[in-house]
Amino acid sequence: MMVYTFDAQVLKCEYAVRGEIVTLAQKLQQDLKDNPGSHPFDEILYCNIGNPQALAQQPITFFREVLALCDHPSILDKSETQGLFSADAIERAFQILDQIPGRATGAYSHSQGIKGLRDTIASGIEARDGFPADPNDLFLTDGASPAVHMMMQLLIRSENDGILCPIPQYPLYSASIALHGGTLVPYYLDEQTGWGLEISELENQLKIAKSKGIDVRALVVINPGNPTGQVLGEANQREIVEFCKREGLVLLADEVYQENVYVPDKKFYSFKKITRSMGYGEKDISLVSFQSVSKGFYGECGKRGGYMEITGFSPEVREQIYKLASVNLCSNISGQILASLIMSSPKVGDESYESFSAEKEAILSSLARRAKTLEDALNSLEGVTCNRAEGAMYLFPCINLPDKAIKAAEAAKTAPDAFYAKHLLNATGIVVVPGSGFRQVPGTWHFRCTILPQEEKIPAIVTHLTEFHKKFMDVFRG
Amino acid sequence: MMVYTFDAQVLKCEYAVRGEIVTLAQKLQQDLKDNPGSHPFDEILYCNIGNPQALAQQPITFFREVLALCDHPSILDKSETQGLFSADAIERAFQILDQIPGRATGAYSHSQGIKGLRDTIASGIEARDGFPADPNDLFLTDGASPAVHMMMQLLIRSENDGILCPIPQYPLYSASIALHGGTLVPYYLDEQTGWGLEISELENQLKIAKSKGIDVRALVVINPGNPTGQVLGEANQREIVEFCKREGLVLLADEVYQENVYVPDKKFYSFKKITRSMGYGEKDISLVSFQSVSKGFYGECGKRGGYMEITGFSPEVREQIYKLASVNLCSNISGQILASLIMSSPKVGDESYESFSAEKEAILSSLARRAKTLEDALNSLEGVTCNRAEGAMYLFPCINLPDKAIKAAEAAKTAPDAFYAKHLLNATGIVVVPGSGFRQVPGTWHFRCTILPQEEKIPAIVTHLTEFHKKFMDVFRG
Repeated sequence: MMVYTFDAQVLKCEYAVRGEIVTLAQKLQQDLKDNPGSHPFDEILYCNIGNPQALAQQPITFFREVLALCDHPSILDKSETQGLFSADAIERAFQILDQIPGRATGAYSHSQGIKGLRDTIASGIEARDGFPADPNDLFLTDGASPAVHMMMQLLIRSENDGILCPIPQYPLYSASIALHGGTLVPYYLDEQTGWGLEISELENQLKIAKSKGIDVRALVVINPGNPTGQVLGEANQREIVEFCKREGLVLLADEVYQENVYVPDKKFYSFKKITRSMGYGEKDISLVSFQSVSKGFYGECGKRGGYMEITGFSPEVREQIYKLASVNLCSNISGQILASLIMSSPKVGDESYESFSAEKEAILSSLARRAKTLEDALNSLEGVTCNRAEGAMYLFPCINLPDKAIKAAEAAKTAPDAFYAKHLLNATGIVVVPGSGFRQVPGTWHFRCTILPQEEKIPAIVTHLTEFHKKFMDVFRG
Repeated sequence: MMVYTFDAQVLKCEYAVRGEIVTLAQKLQQDLKDNPGSHPFDEILYCNIGNPQALAQQPITFFREVLALCDHPSILDKSETQGLFSADAIERAFQILDQIPGRATGAYSHSQGIKGLRDTIASGIEARDGFPADPNDLFLTDGASPAVHMMMQLLIRSENDGILCPIPQYPLYSASIALHGGTLVPYYLDEQTGWGLEISELENQLKIAKSKGIDVRALVVINPGNPTGQVLGEANQREIVEFCKREGLVLLADEVYQENVYVPDKKFYSFKKITRSMGYGEKDISLVSFQSVSKGFYGECGKRGGYMEITGFSPEVREQIYKLASVNLCSNISGQILASLIMSSPKVGDESYESFSAEKEAILSSLARRAKTLEDALNSLEGVTCNRAEGAMYLFPCINLPDKAIKAAEAAKTAPDAFYAKHLLNATGIVVVPGSGFRQVPGTWHFRCTILPQEEKIPAIVTHLTEFHKKFMDVFRG
């Protein structure tokens, strides 16, 4: 077998959400299958990734009805179809097919996505924000990740180009910046103030980066936060917009959790709405908003649908983005259809409205309860503090690990939080991602735990986690 | 509006299949809609891209039945479903759902794709080649393009790394090499011998590249050829394998047109089968085979499904490929399901077998007839010679343009073949891609024309093309 050396940027890239702990979990799962009873637990509980349907969340019926009908349109006219599908799903499928040139759901589309579907999404954005949206500003993508890569590919010219990213951050950002050869310029969220985003910290980090010769080109904001779960306040969002405008930075707004807000005192506002309500338009700020079908209450991760809305870019820049989109021809059409559906769900009076609303409400209210239960459980553990999950799908508790545990981790050549996560997995089957995979204030240790396990499993998870933590601390308290 | 400079690799990248001529075609199409009769033709005939369903090719019924059932599994048990779907489609949907953990078609899958679907694809490869295939060697991707990007990203470390590519080539390769900062090392296919691939040419170009300090890492072979339509002979394939083995090059085999062979004297052999039949295994050669659901007789471009089979790589390399796949989480599940279906279509005895076979045969035989008719028509034109389309979906005729046309093109600051293609479009509505978008022997001019327009439209296309060409030559013959 030949031996190769490979691209340094690829070697540098890391992606903890599917890293070492997950590989171990898959091994344990195989063990349990081959030798039931071989571990002190019966199943692996994947709390590592925002993948709701993998944990038995059911898809939204209306969305799947429309997708099935668009996949096999020849049944639309048959009488049996009336008995199997809701009337508004049939009507919507007809509408969507009429929006697709030649009704060809198997054809490559326009590189930005099917124009009619972009019209629908633009209307949905307008309804959400109360400001106009232009379908020509939308690029439909296979989930949000390729959209982020496209922007990084365009913005980063060399390692002297920097992108301001929150720490902790979703590792897609560090991975994409590494792959495209740029420099991640960190700004730290303040854990003491509920993962607050301080403008003074942005200014400070920008200054440090500049002093190192880094040309900072963009600011990434994840709202609601991943892995941190906070929802930004409106006033804070205005400050962020002013900062980007003042410093000439592209604002990359990761808004994929826009439907996931669980606390009554917080509300999601898109950065598009914020900038427009401040009176800023195309000429004032370059803004990219990322959205995905993978999150929200629908959690259609496997469909790989999403879009980015780009505003405030020159025609020359848009042409480059269009070219990048064209090289991969188009995103998958089912994902495109689903992206249009999440932005135009059934309305009052539609046959599916009540069942759709009930499905949505059941999922979101259950997620809110699960978030609260897990947050309380974590805060009751010795040496653990956990901010509330105001939104998104995650808790990111801080663990004050005893010195003895830190030394044991060092001896095992692993990060202390990875050491903790590995012990947790081996003892309970619970899979979390060590904070070091998201970066954190040096010397602090965290893990990310999703709020997604089925609600009936949450009490057992709390019990197992609590028992494990007590034993772990008893061993390592020193 | 802010002005930016952007990544040089992005600026360098070109993708003619969706370039200037297509933009003009879209404009003309809008004109025709707004002002019918404003051009000397009634419709735009897109012969620029291998997108069969955009030109009214119907999807394969069995494939769409299974996709619809997997999208909305709750109808599987209902009695009406029996009347709407074939029995084997229902059975297959149950089988596929059983292969998906938790039957969750809306969940992110394993980064390489759902294991059960990879098992099915591996069996299909074994049946095709007569040699074993390992599901762990398969990476399911959103069409073949992302797979090609992944390999380029991994192989290219700097501009001193070269990838041997056929000229003419499918512009995905030049675009991907440019985006990843490498050097395209051209080898010319011999138009005189039906786009023959000569080993002496490979050796010569490799030598030239080495003398320039280029570290050539891989050889791209497109078989059947795009844009050139030739099918490699078995003996030639063996020589190519020996060349790669001797020179230590990764063989990147683009085999997405493996089902598209139209002449009785040629047959598709995968490079996997060729290497294994030569007695070469994992230790002897690094081979990547790309496959897609977009081509074949199914032409499911919009579904964005495909896979690559990688053999002969060390565990360290596979780990890097896995990491790259993980950063985007997984390819879309409908595309994954479809990739499994194209490699395991209905068998004798299945309810759908006869209708499936009839659909397949009707499409492939019609494509063969269309290829021959267009080839003959092109060869009858003054100054045009055209090799036969043995496979794939394209003809790539050579046009011997008069000096006066070349001078007029120079005056218009456009390549002579783009000049010809633009005149053709403006006169007839027929969209082809200039040869310069694929590269060609300097001083020769070509265009790529798909064989995909509906069969009943072919006579009119031949008439319009013939009339246009005669007039064009009359004007420019000088």
